[in-house]
Amino acid sequence: MKAVVCSRGQLTVDDVADPVPGHGQVLLDVARAGICGSDLHARHHADVVAEVAETAGYHHMMRSDQRVVMGHEFVGTVAEYGPGCRRRWKKGTRVVALPMISDGARPHLTGLSEKAPGAYAEQVIAAESMVLSVPDGLSTEEAALTEPMAVAWHAVRRGQVRRGQAAVVIGCGPIGLAVIAMLKASGVKQIVASDLSPRRRALAGEMGATVVVDPRLTDPFDAYTPGRNEVRSVSDLVGVALGTMGKLRAVPGPVPWWRVFRLAERLGEVPAGPVVFECVGVPGMISQLVDSAPLRSRIVVVGVCMEQDAFMPAMAGTKEIEFRFVFGYDPGEFHDTLSMMADGKMNVKPLITGTVGLGGVEAAFDALGDPEVHAKILVDPRSGVTTV
Amino acid sequence: MKAVVCSRGQLTVDDVADPVPGHGQVLLDVARAGICGSDLHARHHADVVAEVAETAGYHHMMRSDQRVVMGHEFVGTVAEYGPGCRRRWKKGTRVVALPMISDGARPHLTGLSEKAPGAYAEQVIAAESMVLSVPDGLSTEEAALTEPMAVAWHAVRRGQVRRGQAAVVIGCGPIGLAVIAMLKASGVKQIVASDLSPRRRALAGEMGATVVVDPRLTDPFDAYTPGRNEVRSVSDLVGVALGTMGKLRAVPGPVPWWRVFRLAERLGEVPAGPVVFECVGVPGMISQLVDSAPLRSRIVVVGVCMEQDAFMPAMAGTKEIEFRFVFGYDPGEFHDTLSMMADGKMNVKPLITGTVGLGGVEAAFDALGDPEVHAKILVDPRSGVTTV
Repeated sequence: MKAVVCSRGQLTVDDVADPVPGHGQVLLDVARAGICGSDLHARHHADVVAEVAETAGYHHMMRSDQRVVMGHEFVGTVAEYGPGCRRRWKKGTRVVALPMISDGARPHLTGLSEKAPGAYAEQVIAAESMVLSVPDGLSTEEAALTEPMAVAWHAVRRGQVRRGQAAVVIGCGPIGLAVIAMLKASGVKQIVASDLSPRRRALAGEMGATVVVDPRLTDPFDAYTPGRNEVRSVSDLVGVALGTMGKLRAVPGPVPWWRVFRLAERLGEVPAGPVVFECVGVPGMISQLVDSAPLRSRIVVVGVCMEQDAFMPAMAGTKEIEFRFVFGYDPGEFHDTLSMMADGKMNVKPLITGTVGLGGVEAAFDALGDPEVHAKILVDPRSGVTTV
Repeated sequence: MKAVVCSRGQLTVDDVADPVPGHGQVLLDVARAGICGSDLHARHHADVVAEVAETAGYHHMMRSDQRVVMGHEFVGTVAEYGPGCRRRWKKGTRVVALPMISDGARPHLTGLSEKAPGAYAEQVIAAESMVLSVPDGLSTEEAALTEPMAVAWHAVRRGQVRRGQAAVVIGCGPIGLAVIAMLKASGVKQIVASDLSPRRRALAGEMGATVVVDPRLTDPFDAYTPGRNEVRSVSDLVGVALGTMGKLRAVPGPVPWWRVFRLAERLGEVPAGPVVFECVGVPGMISQLVDSAPLRSRIVVVGVCMEQDAFMPAMAGTKEIEFRFVFGYDPGEFHDTLSMMADGKMNVKPLITGTVGLGGVEAAFDALGDPEVHAKILVDPRSGVTTV
């Protein structure tokens, strides 16, 4: 079959061996595959990515000298079952799948391992246990975004934005935009989006940001109404403690004053900053957010920064900053994402800015470097389009 | 009165003006004051500390060219009330207090501001609303440790160690040892303590560590029995997802398989690493923990590192590390700490390794540099002891 092979930073359309589904595996005809920012990075820096993965205990990540078919965001139709399958869907059924298969004992990430070719190809293999059928009302193009939307849903769930708390999204690339859509879908009332690019700021508004700022002109942390329990400075915090204590002790009653703090904590009324979603992933972001975020901000780090980054731990300490680094999603989140999209909880169509055939993948990789033009480009293996 | 004045890195016993309690303030005769690691740092690096505090919105931190009486961990007896007090305690009553007072509108941290002299002195001022009386059964020496023990209690509460989850304490200085005592008091079953110093490792055992390691010989993350939901590597995590999904989908029944993930999450059965308490506070610790901690570890950063620190965000991402930087405590935690000590939930006496008079404070500061000899040194303003 035809596939886009990545090797030593080159992307070429080649004939590769037809994939054969193994035990418990399903062969899919690829309908659409999304191009992910991590593919752009893996194209040129596969060995750095593989080394990080190796230290984290994952040993099968693609290397630059291997010949790898990338593409881990995909929707396809059931073509054939391997042995030992439950054969739950008829051939031709539209499905999505979590991009992971097992090679006997060893798991592989589809599209990021030589042993698990991805979906920039006519066909791709999925584990039957990881497959979900696409609900009728959802278009094939939208279904192709299940995987990146699941990344955003996982980030938003880990963010645990409380009622009345603001969310601040730093960086409005495809993942930042997906995070905005998921925040809106989960009912967050104040969503500040920050990006240098006018095009991306416009998309941020379309996806549901309530305030959109150019960070060169407006500090995103000044662009929302702080919740009644948001404290901006240590002085304020000490002042609140002194003031509250004074008031509480002046109130006669059967409730000891220190219990009031526990109650306030349970009600989520302890001083807290916004939930920040870092979706840029370049060196300097950690330090910039530690310095600029309000006291007790929770920073969900979704952007993947592959270089060293330095910051002042004492500053993070004084401000009681919390970092939650996130990666991927669990199968439940993947399922929920597909359901939310099918239920019309969000409209992801504005994210799709182009479609190319296999012969256009290299041009698409290049085009994604310009934030003014593209957000998400899909690959349609049956299309002959080579430019975007 | 006599007090130890810190100015330009020098500690000298001087005659200073007798403190006069203002509105809502209580004058205390100091019984004991503990020497804190942050005082050692502030002695020589006050301006760096003040700049970090300034950026965090706290504008009254001591500067090196000021004349400051340090000492924010104290126990004393009520000597005199200022105007507007409720006069709740008889004169002579033993009390502790949160080290913060208000100068009209501006809050000050006692012992860390020129405007709020601390307890390395014969007398100290406290806000009446911040005062708690010392229960009869608790010795004055132990009560002096309320403040640092509250720092540890806040850290342990923020750590939210779950049933069956292990705690790993990196660094067994006074705060690391206090964290160990608080972990034990809150019922954590596996407490690994790691320190280079044999003396501190011995104290860690006394305070309640269940496993004590020299990190040059044993990786602290290999020194406990992982919980059944602890996953060590990304390979394992992907394997778990594939295996679980396969099993779940093979089970017939009314519960959709993806709901099982939500249930597991509510039951705390999602894959998670240990809770790590970073109590060292030197550059390199963040990076070292990001590289060595198991997947999905929560790292509570208690140690205060006043220099830049660099790490690989992509590594923290791949492992879904969480950082909770902590600082201080709230009034409820301060109260709870005193109660726990009075109820015998822990024995802090082994932490106290020496007592000096005001004339011995400088020698004590120097002696605290050697982890083989001292943990916590108390100052007794009535004592004539000048060496430890």
